[in-house]
Amino acid sequence: MNSRKIVIVLAEGFEETEAVATADVLKRLGFQVSMAGLNSERVRSSAGLTVLADLLFRDADLAQADALVLPGGLPGASHLRSSPEVMDALRFMTEHGKVVAAICAAPIAIERAGLTKGKKVTGYPGSNKDIPGLEYTGNRVERDGLLVTAKGPGVSFEFAAAIALALGVPQDRIDAVLNGMFVLR
Amino acid sequence: MNSRKIVIVLAEGFEETEAVATADVLKRLGFQVSMAGLNSERVRSSAGLTVLADLLFRDADLAQADALVLPGGLPGASHLRSSPEVMDALRFMTEHGKVVAAICAAPIAIERAGLTKGKKVTGYPGSNKDIPGLEYTGNRVERDGLLVTAKGPGVSFEFAAAIALALGVPQDRIDAVLNGMFVLR
Repeated sequence: MNSRKIVIVLAEGFEETEAVATADVLKRLGFQVSMAGLNSERVRSSAGLTVLADLLFRDADLAQADALVLPGGLPGASHLRSSPEVMDALRFMTEHGKVVAAICAAPIAIERAGLTKGKKVTGYPGSNKDIPGLEYTGNRVERDGLLVTAKGPGVSFEFAAAIALALGVPQDRIDAVLNGMFVLR
Repeated sequence: MNSRKIVIVLAEGFEETEAVATADVLKRLGFQVSMAGLNSERVRSSAGLTVLADLLFRDADLAQADALVLPGGLPGASHLRSSPEVMDALRFMTEHGKVVAAICAAPIAIERAGLTKGKKVTGYPGSNKDIPGLEYTGNRVERDGLLVTAKGPGVSFEFAAAIALALGVPQDRIDAVLNGMFVLR
């Protein structure tokens, strides 16, 4: 068990597997995971799942959080990118040596916050096409120090594992949880 | 696209990835997927995610549905097993040549309905231990005619694929969707 905290930001149009499967793995690893609604406590995914967030994002205590996680999906990732609160939060986390993670289209928000320069980043192919400064490696998951990015919904388990690894969880503990979920074959 | 309908039953304590990732894949394949709350429209997963169901299970029109899907998780699967409405629904679906599917601990509900006899079934290891008539093969996914079962949360994408296959979706169409989600490597 650990008592560390992770905040996942849910914007209207988030990708449901990327939010939920990622949270599931991290909770099984003992993290306290909060679903924080960007603009409302009732948030609808891009495919129509309605989740009741645990709190509003503006009420999240980021000073007490160890990681901030951004699911992708459209228009969810665009909402994250155009939110001044999310921009401030991403910079706050990075300045304080905390983990920042984004999957699928959501790395565009990290780029907008100016935090991808010189970093290895992956994401949904093509979602970086209008962003001159952002280069995707095309790998399933990238971890560059405290910045974790991933490609899309089918990578959610590996994305969660990379976040846990960035937070110092030993690989064998992560593998035990993934094996218990039958992720690994 | 297709206009076929799938009902996923959410009981208190359902496993969140098994419900959400499965639904995500099936929606991407064009199915109309409804989350049906067993006893309330607000349903909490075993790990603490709160989902707003689309309807109450008792209001689901099973005559119009092509498949009934049971996520696992505890106590979710136990609630499914002890629900007379779920028992009636499983028998109705089977009698009408529709697909019945269950993952993780939820095959215990299908066994209780008397629908696993002589069928190849898989599920979460050990969840069948007090059920003399129920034998699990231990495979990640089993499809025996219109009965689909799977082992646990890490198998959700394959579980959804097997449900789609049982509903007649061509394998290449399924693979295209899984590839688009980066499930396949």
